[in-house]
Amino acid sequence: MKPTTGKPSTPPEQWWKTSIIDVQPGEIGIRGYPIETLIGNLSYAQMVWLMLRGEVPSKPLATLLEAALVAAVDHGPQAPSIAIARMSMTCGVDINNAMASAINVLGDVHGGAGQQCMDLFRSVLECASAEQCGVAHASDIVVGDHQRNVSKMIPGYGHRFHPVDPRATRLLALVEQARCEGLLTGQYLAAARAIEATLARRANKAIPINIDGATAVIYSELGFSATLGRGLFILSRSVGILAHAYEQSQAQERIKGPMPPSVPYTYTGPARRNVPSSTVRYENDQY
Amino acid sequence: MKPTTGKPSTPPEQWWKTSIIDVQPGEIGIRGYPIETLIGNLSYAQMVWLMLRGEVPSKPLATLLEAALVAAVDHGPQAPSIAIARMSMTCGVDINNAMASAINVLGDVHGGAGQQCMDLFRSVLECASAEQCGVAHASDIVVGDHQRNVSKMIPGYGHRFHPVDPRATRLLALVEQARCEGLLTGQYLAAARAIEATLARRANKAIPINIDGATAVIYSELGFSATLGRGLFILSRSVGILAHAYEQSQAQERIKGPMPPSVPYTYTGPARRNVPSSTVRYENDQY
Amino acid sequence: MKPTTGKPSTPPEQWWKTSIIDVQPGEIGIRGYPIETLIGNLSYAQMVWLMLRGEVPSKPLATLLEAALVAAVDHGPQAPSIAIARMSMTCGVDINNAMASAINVLGDVHGGAGQQCMDLFRSVLECASAEQCGVAHASDIVVGDHQRNVSKMIPGYGHRFHPVDPRATRLLALVEQARCEGLLTGQYLAAARAIEATLARRANKAIPINIDGATAVIYSELGFSATLGRGLFILSRSVGILAHAYEQSQAQERIKGPMPPSVPYTYTGPARRNVPSSTVRYENDQY
Amino acid sequence: MKPTTGKPSTPPEQWWKTSIIDVQPGEIGIRGYPIETLIGNLSYAQMVWLMLRGEVPSKPLATLLEAALVAAVDHGPQAPSIAIARMSMTCGVDINNAMASAINVLGDVHGGAGQQCMDLFRSVLECASAEQCGVAHASDIVVGDHQRNVSKMIPGYGHRFHPVDPRATRLLALVEQARCEGLLTGQYLAAARAIEATLARRANKAIPINIDGATAVIYSELGFSATLGRGLFILSRSVGILAHAYEQSQAQERIKGPMPPSVPYTYTGPARRNVPSSTVRYENDQY
Repeated sequence: MKPTTGKPSTPPEQWWKTSIIDVQPGEIGIRGYPIETLIGNLSYAQMVWLMLRGEVPSKPLATLLEAALVAAVDHGPQAPSIAIARMSMTCGVDINNAMASAINVLGDVHGGAGQQCMDLFRSVLECASAEQCGVAHASDIVVGDHQRNVSKMIPGYGHRFHPVDPRATRLLALVEQARCEGLLTGQYLAAARAIEATLARRANKAIPINIDGATAVIYSELGFSATLGRGLFILSRSVGILAHAYEQSQAQERIKGPMPPSVPYTYTGPARRNVPSSTVRYENDQY
Repeated sequence: MKPTTGKPSTPPEQWWKTSIIDVQPGEIGIRGYPIETLIGNLSYAQMVWLMLRGEVPSKPLATLLEAALVAAVDHGPQAPSIAIARMSMTCGVDINNAMASAINVLGDVHGGAGQQCMDLFRSVLECASAEQCGVAHASDIVVGDHQRNVSKMIPGYGHRFHPVDPRATRLLALVEQARCEGLLTGQYLAAARAIEATLARRANKAIPINIDGATAVIYSELGFSATLGRGLFILSRSVGILAHAYEQSQAQERIKGPMPPSVPYTYTGPARRNVPSSTVRYENDQY
Repeated sequence: MKPTTGKPSTPPEQWWKTSIIDVQPGEIGIRGYPIETLIGNLSYAQMVWLMLRGEVPSKPLATLLEAALVAAVDHGPQAPSIAIARMSMTCGVDINNAMASAINVLGDVHGGAGQQCMDLFRSVLECASAEQCGVAHASDIVVGDHQRNVSKMIPGYGHRFHPVDPRATRLLALVEQARCEGLLTGQYLAAARAIEATLARRANKAIPINIDGATAVIYSELGFSATLGRGLFILSRSVGILAHAYEQSQAQERIKGPMPPSVPYTYTGPARRNVPSSTVRYENDQY
Repeated sequence: MKPTTGKPSTPPEQWWKTSIIDVQPGEIGIRGYPIETLIGNLSYAQMVWLMLRGEVPSKPLATLLEAALVAAVDHGPQAPSIAIARMSMTCGVDINNAMASAINVLGDVHGGAGQQCMDLFRSVLECASAEQCGVAHASDIVVGDHQRNVSKMIPGYGHRFHPVDPRATRLLALVEQARCEGLLTGQYLAAARAIEATLARRANKAIPINIDGATAVIYSELGFSATLGRGLFILSRSVGILAHAYEQSQAQERIKGPMPPSVPYTYTGPARRNVPSSTVRYENDQY
């Protein structure tokens, strides 16, 4: 193919650019740090942070990130992602493929609540700033807008299974402690609590912060973007996906469907019928 | 896990429902038709239509679908989807995995133009109906809205490489012929031509309908939804993805990157530096 | 990165090579044919063949390919691939994404039977040639080897659900007809029948050719390689995957797991216990 | 569908089983541990270990796992996996989708060297035990077998780019230190060094342990299975995949192929030609 435009063409060596890694023979730099000075010195969570943000976090902040990563690894084989990982392993693929098919479904609905919740927190803080009001009032405005324009459901709040999500309770206690120690501003925690209060008042019952909301508080307080919030959730859930894929692979089952073969599905289409003869391609019974 | 709500729980056999296929021992019905009456009697394109829409199309309409499916199979190894298929095959995965990674990137930007174009045609026709005006005027309104609110680029028009897309010319001639024979209403073709005229006037040069626009005309005239428009494109491009994956697999290359190893990439990050000692986890060099 | 070896480095424009497609401004050639001469003139099945093999097949041979592609599109929502496509669509991903996760699991076990069966047919013919014996005897040898060294199950024979697979019966009748008309040699059909006879004698009951075996006969008779046999199955099953993904997307369900939420799963791990205090990271002064 | 066999059918609640997680309303147990006792108390690496193995590792062993996970996160945009992640993000897909396509290609060739190397170490130790010989002699036997029967290349040794892999040097020093402290037996380290010596003698030059070999030593010493060795590599590399996908997403590029559009690819197929008229479907120029 020839150049397509009058634009000066990009030299091949400038086509791919990155500020993340520099590889030279015998030498690897990650964000400027020789990799041998990172190995054994940084925790895995610090390395995640360095790769995504460009700097090494302090130990206490990294530990808070670690708590969030630990909390979200798994929610059992009824989750589509986990079920997909397990079914995949019975189809004769390798573990990288099973992980890929599973991670692939962590989309807006199954994997995006944390990201959406981070956006909501930011909206509350921006609204409070713009309206010169407290987060309580800002939360009323933002929740109202969301429920009118997007959905009655507020991402990060309530759980179809847990009356109170035990992961959220613990994570928020850690955030509170960090705030007391001056490690965080606590502004996103405040926004999160304000939304919780708004929802309780509107619904006349508690709709508590869930795991997605609690990790959204942490990722926001630590300064991650909302997109990276989803990325961190994927890293975390990948651990559960791997564990379930591996456990399934030990069971020697083949082509395992969603239900036992003895459980039928329901057919809702038309009854048996004949193909309209006018549509048949070769009337003279040639194939 | 226990039931989570007061809602009456779904019996397992009603959890999965479909109107597409009914499987009984020794018997398979597709949309009501015994499968042995379809095999050898329907063309592949008719089968695609039956599966997606529930009825067998007439032969001329199926042939028009077939023309669109034939046209979009490939655009060469510079396309990310094709390059991904080829690179995958050098990484030691099977052909289903290479196809999956490639199909996966046929997203809004690389695979969605046809779908977006179908939405645009529908907007023009709805606008003409609502405003009681012709498609020419409706096209001015819809294109103006799109360029103000979404993007200057109109999906389905113009091509960064082809001054005129030879696939589009041929496909639109087939649509025109079908319209003359009374097989189609031609309303989507009219909308497409109206947009082309609007764009030419606004840009003061021709920005002709491309492959995505031409297949969007066909899929719209045939009554497919916009989502299925993307699905049909994926089926079509899967042929090219398979062909390139297979061709690559014959070449015995290993871990083939996007460029020759001799072409460097550009590192744009910080220069070499030391890890801040306060962040190191175990100062006393214990690990 | 610098060149890594003393080998003369590959110029960038020779890094990617293909014999499939040539794209020039305003011009697209597929295997040498201007694409506008293919659109509307070739059937979709002929185009698949041309892309994969480099030449346009005759109409009768293409029609046989078409029959095989039509036959294998779907086997219902209990298949992991179809269930994955449906679950994916409830997770907030696009249809390309759902198709990718589903196609990805068409691995050796769920998608490879046809390919393995093609290898088996070839082994029978090669054995007959090497041993100067008939396919009946060669089949005994090859099946015996397979059952001793690989598995009791012979890919392409028997079905856990269908006593006789209605797709196979119809497809084999079409092959027989084509053989009578001199379109095919029929050697792979003979090998397939010989294996069927061997299995019946060994098991003392009929273990008839199934859909994978019947399509393997067709793809072998048409001269496709075994790897492409899997590729053709993937193209075919992609139609069912798309149809089910789309049907599911119309149902407005969210995060649909493999079973109704009211059906529990079985936990088989240890009872509740305490974390060993020696392993806790920060005993005092939590993070 | 009806039950297919005489086997007693599996009740739906026993279809999915796991020893990993137990979820009850308001309560989540991971391998028996209430999740709130893990959050903030275990490091991320300890949690990975617990999920995969069922027990919480001691802190020093977890730190060694952590070193291996930190070391393998990235090797730059020339790797197919990283390039695929970056190209995907320019195609209009979400970050989970880009990560899936990239992780999917960590197959036997691009992601399996560590796993294969773990198998090799085990073979050396088993050979030494069976032959009642030292690892030096066993290594000669195993390497000889591998080079005769599988490939001249020994997975985990040598690097096309790094004369000495700086990650391996550092990781092996940490293993050595742990061995001195009695945390590990050091038997896999000994096997690894024996292979290195065998290779140097055979090739008459150093072919040092690379990152895959060094992490294989650690994962083997820590008692992970070879399959999980690949799984751990995938978790680690996922961090790099996420970082590159995110960095690319900030660049606002669209449909970014492997090379600049100005660099052509090489077409190696037939010159322009005419479609054989006998293959054209509708001679009378009907479409």
